[in-house]
Amino acid sequence: MNNFSYYNPVKIIFGKGSIARLKDEIPTGARVLVLYGGGSIKKNGVYDQVADALKDYSWKEFSGIEANPHYETCMKAVELVKENNIDFLLAVGGGSVLDATKLIAAAVYYDGNDPWDILAKNAPIKKAMPLAAVMTLPATGSEMNGNSVVTKASTHEKLSFGSPLVFPVFSVLDPETSYSLPDNQTANGIIDAFVHVCEQYLTYPFDAPLQDRMAESILQTLVQEGPKALKTPKDYAVRANIMWAATMALNGLIAVGVPQDWASHSIGHEITAFHGLAHAETLAIVLPALARVMKENKKEKLVQMGERVFGVNSGSTEERVEKTIEAVESFFRSLGVRTKLSEYSLGAEIIDPIVQRFVERGWKLGEKGDITPLKIQEILTAAL
Amino acid sequence: MNNFSYYNPVKIIFGKGSIARLKDEIPTGARVLVLYGGGSIKKNGVYDQVADALKDYSWKEFSGIEANPHYETCMKAVELVKENNIDFLLAVGGGSVLDATKLIAAAVYYDGNDPWDILAKNAPIKKAMPLAAVMTLPATGSEMNGNSVVTKASTHEKLSFGSPLVFPVFSVLDPETSYSLPDNQTANGIIDAFVHVCEQYLTYPFDAPLQDRMAESILQTLVQEGPKALKTPKDYAVRANIMWAATMALNGLIAVGVPQDWASHSIGHEITAFHGLAHAETLAIVLPALARVMKENKKEKLVQMGERVFGVNSGSTEERVEKTIEAVESFFRSLGVRTKLSEYSLGAEIIDPIVQRFVERGWKLGEKGDITPLKIQEILTAAL
Repeated sequence: MNNFSYYNPVKIIFGKGSIARLKDEIPTGARVLVLYGGGSIKKNGVYDQVADALKDYSWKEFSGIEANPHYETCMKAVELVKENNIDFLLAVGGGSVLDATKLIAAAVYYDGNDPWDILAKNAPIKKAMPLAAVMTLPATGSEMNGNSVVTKASTHEKLSFGSPLVFPVFSVLDPETSYSLPDNQTANGIIDAFVHVCEQYLTYPFDAPLQDRMAESILQTLVQEGPKALKTPKDYAVRANIMWAATMALNGLIAVGVPQDWASHSIGHEITAFHGLAHAETLAIVLPALARVMKENKKEKLVQMGERVFGVNSGSTEERVEKTIEAVESFFRSLGVRTKLSEYSLGAEIIDPIVQRFVERGWKLGEKGDITPLKIQEILTAAL
Repeated sequence: MNNFSYYNPVKIIFGKGSIARLKDEIPTGARVLVLYGGGSIKKNGVYDQVADALKDYSWKEFSGIEANPHYETCMKAVELVKENNIDFLLAVGGGSVLDATKLIAAAVYYDGNDPWDILAKNAPIKKAMPLAAVMTLPATGSEMNGNSVVTKASTHEKLSFGSPLVFPVFSVLDPETSYSLPDNQTANGIIDAFVHVCEQYLTYPFDAPLQDRMAESILQTLVQEGPKALKTPKDYAVRANIMWAATMALNGLIAVGVPQDWASHSIGHEITAFHGLAHAETLAIVLPALARVMKENKKEKLVQMGERVFGVNSGSTEERVEKTIEAVESFFRSLGVRTKLSEYSLGAEIIDPIVQRFVERGWKLGEKGDITPLKIQEILTAAL
């Protein structure tokens, strides 16, 4: 096990009816900005619950945060924060709203010329506005970490940053808020969480059995509960189990002391940035292709995952590896999500511009830093 | 799943050589009291590492904290803290030293007449001195929670308290510090962590598959790695895995939203208070006896634990329950720890005084509150 530090001060407030507890958690007298997306929270009652909980506060709202939130939108919110002397940010929605809110919290106090440098140049964050979340879409895990992914629409760049200063002070998770999600968002959320685990687990043996088994626990839960959420969307236990699994998938615990990959995310981000696919849609395409191309690195963990998560118990190593990857693909497809670029009418022509980006950035991807631009080309070819 | 809040701001600093990082974590200018036990830290080099890391601080020391730490000892430390204007407490050792330090941190600012009321009467804690730990004995999980157990020697009372104000600010966990533990302390630590998990897991089915599987992950890790620690005490990976498993066993995560038991602890505490057995020694006796007496409540989870942790895959429910309990006993005995009262020359005469205590307290023990004094009598009889 590698040396590690683990620190996660996010308070999780979990369960039905929990939105009412906002009034116990937001400091008295705070001037709150409520941030949200396209308005689904107005249809499913979440907005009303938030408004009711905030009735003793002075608060404003900022709506229209996109999926794959735009940097340009965040900058408009920063203006609103400054104009209204806001001092507490409350994100209500899914990971995109929360990720945008994290950038806004940091950008408000950013003392450089261009807050995009926080993402593009790892510019240091010295201060951020306190923020919290009401998370209605189990998926990104953003509710219990200090990470954020934001897209600059003008240049099609999708980049991430992280800082302990943008941990939510608290996150409210009410599984009932996920009852009304469209099937594709439910499915995408499950796949997002599943691939988050894979990025931290599907590397090579590292003699860290507890991290392995905890990662497998999350995968098993998603495989078991995911299809139920599509069949019986208002089953509280199922929604609760998925919501908690998504949080546990990316709160840092399964990653302590072990190698991590994250190449599927890096490659997937480019597909979203160039072609607009939902984040999880890109992951469902890239992860299996990457596992096939990088199987020499990952074969032991693929065999272990096959055995422990999907019951793949027979065959040669080569056969087990392929059966495991097929089981992952079948799981994604059972949720109604496609696993090939061609199913989105994307062909070989998309590969070069993406590969070119990685050539320019000079990034070394993967748990061994050996996913070169040439390998990315192979992976995208395998994903066609 | 029940509604829950989860908040755990303890920073974990894990790995070989980590004690040197004290100087980055303790606030500059702090006046530190280093608290420890019987002096083993002077033999294994830990004291020297701490002293080296603290060379730029003003610090004092307080030694002689017992296993099952005494309230009376804690009160002596409180005097020393006040006399020397200490403002930061650093526990160096195992759970007993840290639990004592938590009480000292709260007692220093306690404004009632008798700080024992914190344990005996749940007297509220309004303020506590910042504290941190260098944990050298993987066992209690105290390094990542706000709980403490302290014994009043004069009355043979062993009681617990908990408060978010006594979370360690940080805990340093260096697996190498556990290389020199005597075998019985290594074994007791593993059993302590194992039973902590059982108290949160071995109840009844609650449709919380992730909590179940995470609990089983910890149990599997302890069952797999525990015997290795006795055979090859200086295997870093083994010691690291056990240390991390013990922390994860009681940082609150596996308990979120599910029923908990803790009756084995309550009963075990009385055996320690009256007869001086080590904490884990009492647990190794009480847990199997309790599982047999309460098997009607616990049978589904016993079958599940048997199957997933010990590979008990055949037989009737009744047979599987018994095989699982026998597997737990065998595991404890494989670590060299006894599982019956008679093996400590304790007989039926010890039962009545213990039962009498629970009659007086009127506590309802167990996940269903149905472990009455009569049941405790049955459990202790089964443990003879």
